[in-house]
Amino acid sequence: MWQLPKAVSLVSGHGEGPTELNAFDRALQDARVADINFLRVTSIMPPGARIIDLPRYPAGLLLPAVYARIASTQRGDRIAAAIGVGVCRERHGVIMEHAAHASREEADAAVRRMIEEGVRIRGLVLDELVTVVAEHTVERAGCAVAVALFWPTPTGLPR
Amino acid sequence: MWQLPKAVSLVSGHGEGPTELNAFDRALQDARVADINFLRVTSIMPPGARIIDLPRYPAGLLLPAVYARIASTQRGDRIAAAIGVGVCRERHGVIMEHAAHASREEADAAVRRMIEEGVRIRGLVLDELVTVVAEHTVERAGCAVAVALFWPTPTGLPR
Amino acid sequence: MWQLPKAVSLVSGHGEGPTELNAFDRALQDARVADINFLRVTSIMPPGARIIDLPRYPAGLLLPAVYARIASTQRGDRIAAAIGVGVCRERHGVIMEHAAHASREEADAAVRRMIEEGVRIRGLVLDELVTVVAEHTVERAGCAVAVALFWPTPTGLPR
Repeated sequence: MWQLPKAVSLVSGHGEGPTELNAFDRALQDARVADINFLRVTSIMPPGARIIDLPRYPAGLLLPAVYARIASTQRGDRIAAAIGVGVCRERHGVIMEHAAHASREEADAAVRRMIEEGVRIRGLVLDELVTVVAEHTVERAGCAVAVALFWPTPTGLPR
Repeated sequence: MWQLPKAVSLVSGHGEGPTELNAFDRALQDARVADINFLRVTSIMPPGARIIDLPRYPAGLLLPAVYARIASTQRGDRIAAAIGVGVCRERHGVIMEHAAHASREEADAAVRRMIEEGVRIRGLVLDELVTVVAEHTVERAGCAVAVALFWPTPTGLPR
Repeated sequence: MWQLPKAVSLVSGHGEGPTELNAFDRALQDARVADINFLRVTSIMPPGARIIDLPRYPAGLLLPAVYARIASTQRGDRIAAAIGVGVCRERHGVIMEHAAHASREEADAAVRRMIEEGVRIRGLVLDELVTVVAEHTVERAGCAVAVALFWPTPTGLPR
């Protein structure tokens, strides 16, 4: 709390389950982050923060994260979740999430437009734009997630 | 943040109020946790964490918690909220929540099935399954809650 | 986490954007808090906490906050978000939020009633009641927000 994250990891996943919450769990497992206690946050990329691959973490960790999540029990539904980071070197950037009954390409395009708008209204200059997207076609209960995980050091957790 | 909880308390409650938010407040009061600032988290039982009775805490405490919450303003509506912990000794476990227009028994059964599935997909072995449930029949605006509170030490807060 | 906030700031704002999330971002910018990573909390005013003007903070800060948020894409819609603090000297108080398709006056009145009820059911005595409200009439996608930000010291962040 009252801290500045120093790194962000982006992951996405999708899955099926007997209920929407179990499908969410499966989608998080697909993204390799099912064993984390997420604290959902709104979405600023701290100045100087790096984008890093998912580091090692212990199961049960309390960790702040931005996430897009969509679940459906409508067989045949195509759902997608996207998250993106707009990096503005020397300054802070923005993180935007989008989840919809849409294709991977549509969700990705939507999140890119939202980042560009978020950067524009702040008068920032976009140096880099990174997105991850998951798409899923529902069988019984399905879920797609895209997550930005915040870390306290430039490489993940303190050693 | 970026910490591992060491204990979990499970409580539930229900109540009536002039609005749904006031009814939520009443339900939390019924559960003896109305004076806490909850940070809502997703739901892993950290390895080695204990299930403990609700310890003492100061009003206004910022505390991570998983909760199920359902409110309704439909007179006569039966609503229920359930939360459960699947404990896997030597490993981490899962916490699942469920809230529905349902009876106490239905909500409890649903959360048990969700825990069994969450344990199964992780390849874990369930040693213990503990649930709490609240049921409420709505008069004006009613709410049922079930909460898992995370504590930083095996007995609650540091002395 | 597991801490007691020592001060609270109340702000509100509204705005328009191409999407509801961008409009939310604009509304936060209007409230001068768009560059914060909010951890949404439920709502107790800690004992002895002060209400202070918005202090300085670095972009990207992780900060616990209570907020009311309403967005709409219905042209001509009038939306309002209100938040209020009921201060009970010597004891803790309550924070309530309300967002609706309503006027500024209606949202303000609703949140005042909710605070009075929250204070009443705790057997507290209300010494002071402070609210902030934002109202917005939607053009394309609009949003109104009202936020209570929690600070770790009586003047904001530690020096």
